[in-house]
Amino acid sequence: MQYTFASRMENTPRSFIREILKVTQKPEIISFAGGLPNPELFPVQELAATAEKVIAEEGTAALQYATTEGHPPLRQWIADRYKKRLGIEISPNEILITNGSQQCLDLIGKIFINKGSNVAIERPGYLGAIQAFSMYEPNFSTISLTSEGPDINELERVLTRDKPCFFYGVPNSQNPSGITWSRENRKAVAETLERFSTIFVEDDAYGELKFRGKQMPSIKELIPDLTVMTGSFSKIIAPGMRMGWICAPKQILEQAVTVKQGTDLHSNILSQRIISRFLADFPVDAHISRISEAYSNQCDCMLSAIKAEFPEGVTCTRPDGGMFIWATLPEGYSSMELFERAIKQDVAILPGIPFYTDGGGLDTVRLNFSNSTPERIEEGIYRLGQVLKEYLKETPNHHAA
Amino acid sequence: MQYTFASRMENTPRSFIREILKVTQKPEIISFAGGLPNPELFPVQELAATAEKVIAEEGTAALQYATTEGHPPLRQWIADRYKKRLGIEISPNEILITNGSQQCLDLIGKIFINKGSNVAIERPGYLGAIQAFSMYEPNFSTISLTSEGPDINELERVLTRDKPCFFYGVPNSQNPSGITWSRENRKAVAETLERFSTIFVEDDAYGELKFRGKQMPSIKELIPDLTVMTGSFSKIIAPGMRMGWICAPKQILEQAVTVKQGTDLHSNILSQRIISRFLADFPVDAHISRISEAYSNQCDCMLSAIKAEFPEGVTCTRPDGGMFIWATLPEGYSSMELFERAIKQDVAILPGIPFYTDGGGLDTVRLNFSNSTPERIEEGIYRLGQVLKEYLKETPNHHAA
Repeated sequence: MQYTFASRMENTPRSFIREILKVTQKPEIISFAGGLPNPELFPVQELAATAEKVIAEEGTAALQYATTEGHPPLRQWIADRYKKRLGIEISPNEILITNGSQQCLDLIGKIFINKGSNVAIERPGYLGAIQAFSMYEPNFSTISLTSEGPDINELERVLTRDKPCFFYGVPNSQNPSGITWSRENRKAVAETLERFSTIFVEDDAYGELKFRGKQMPSIKELIPDLTVMTGSFSKIIAPGMRMGWICAPKQILEQAVTVKQGTDLHSNILSQRIISRFLADFPVDAHISRISEAYSNQCDCMLSAIKAEFPEGVTCTRPDGGMFIWATLPEGYSSMELFERAIKQDVAILPGIPFYTDGGGLDTVRLNFSNSTPERIEEGIYRLGQVLKEYLKETPNHHAA
Repeated sequence: MQYTFASRMENTPRSFIREILKVTQKPEIISFAGGLPNPELFPVQELAATAEKVIAEEGTAALQYATTEGHPPLRQWIADRYKKRLGIEISPNEILITNGSQQCLDLIGKIFINKGSNVAIERPGYLGAIQAFSMYEPNFSTISLTSEGPDINELERVLTRDKPCFFYGVPNSQNPSGITWSRENRKAVAETLERFSTIFVEDDAYGELKFRGKQMPSIKELIPDLTVMTGSFSKIIAPGMRMGWICAPKQILEQAVTVKQGTDLHSNILSQRIISRFLADFPVDAHISRISEAYSNQCDCMLSAIKAEFPEGVTCTRPDGGMFIWATLPEGYSSMELFERAIKQDVAILPGIPFYTDGGGLDTVRLNFSNSTPERIEEGIYRLGQVLKEYLKETPNHHAA
């Protein structure tokens, strides 16, 4: 049977990561390829008790259809948290509960992107965002990510030339690069966007997982009317319940609510109530600190191992939060070749290729540290170091561009 | 601040139902306007115990990221159920778990609809489908719903003239009309679609809630390669967890999985496991029979009251399942006027207008019987009868077209 699909399906091949992850799921493989949080830090017993209590005590309200906007106490908690963590004033009415922050990206794409619209993203950019936005058939304009954040000259050039419907970025501990935009860079980005009245989509999935350095101002604080923030409980509680949120100026939020309703009516109310109750009943700051400390240790363990084991010429970022380190091979070496060689030693890495919408990045590698124990990180990086040394020795020249 | 939204936002006004329901939420109002299942039939205690058990026993697997396709035992249960209830052979690999069946409609729209594509729907058609598909900017071709099902001549004309990318319909106890397509009509629809190689989207939200008459063959049974079915746990367990599924030929399912991944990665795994465990641990057939019996009583109660209280000239459908009765006023009378008059007597009805994409239906009314007790149904229909009598007496002629 031959079926005819919409034109957007030509642009959405089955995820590259998905196919790679299939290869890497054997238990003997030490995988730095995925992007899973550390399940040992999930508050399992607390959630089991909370789930039982929510259904038994809140009864049918936890199981019936609910409002599209989301559970009011949960929206209030999120607003209060913004005040406490970032010092910004958000009304609960500016918050919509979504199915994880991935759904934020789909809803934002739906609201803003026409076929052929331009969308500005970092280079490298978050793959999940590229996948979500691609379904609305935009053209991507990329802005190089420096160690300080997006290149401001490129941003200005893109805004002038392409008039993108928005600029999407991850200022805190970016996925894939682990880079956090500097204070000066944030100000320059905000000023530039304001000058062009261009919306910023601020993906803050990792903001709570900052384990060193000072709290930076969010872009939302600098240009509130032009910023749509996305947030997630996936990294601070657990991802399986798919709970995230959009925080946006009222006019934009109303559009998000309209499309959310047509998309799936509302987010799982049982899980909204479980999370809301969990946040009320347990010491959340202590819980989040525990996760940040663990990730800090896992990150430092990987950085030390890299320093000890990787050959000269391979460079790495030094994240101040999040779950990823970004490595760059010497010019002309291939991350796909490294993947093939490493998997034979039962170590998996993620080639950086799918994070580039306009080609390039063939020498980049994403390494996840949140989902491996220090022992496995040390062993995995040791093996990867051996593979790298061999690869760089064997083929010193013919890969050069 | 002036924001620029995508062109699709011009076609998706905030739901008509949503705005009406706001007016009708005061507790003193007897509302037949909504579409909620009866919460007294939710298995609250069983779900509370199951939720606690799932998290405590299945641990981090119930809280971590999961596969896009869905929890394997749940997909197996759905496949087995199709075999048992409808006698059709479905592989679990042909099933994708979604956020309620509303998300099926969004994913199907995403897969098939280009801007300007034609989509065929019943007239009147399900509002949630109209809302979901509208976001992909199709033109709707409508096919009149007779008491036997879609008008076959119109279907043939639409398939010839408009070449729709699919025909969407609800053969069992349709929302809004309560009509179930006859056996002969189903065969004719299937034959016609097969002749034109046109896909049928078979929304089976109410198939399990059949309380009289024989089981009809599903269109899936008649033209399996051309049929995409959607199903839901909202009506047989509880809607708040937003759990539904798509059942489609493998090639189509693969596309649905791809877009689901970009849309929200996967459905809530905790709720998938709760439902799966509930289905394994409790007698599901007895539970569903209990719901069907209750709805049968509520439906019959409303039909009897209508017979006793409504003036001559108002006609009603006699559903064999589902949650709705469909009333038609004498020619020239307005359901919006009836809504305004009834709300003053603290009774809410839903004017049928939004179920028509091409205008018309101004004299139609949807009445929900699943979410009111027999006492409130009797009292509400009594008041509505009084309002109708007065309306039909006061303005006997000037409303005529």
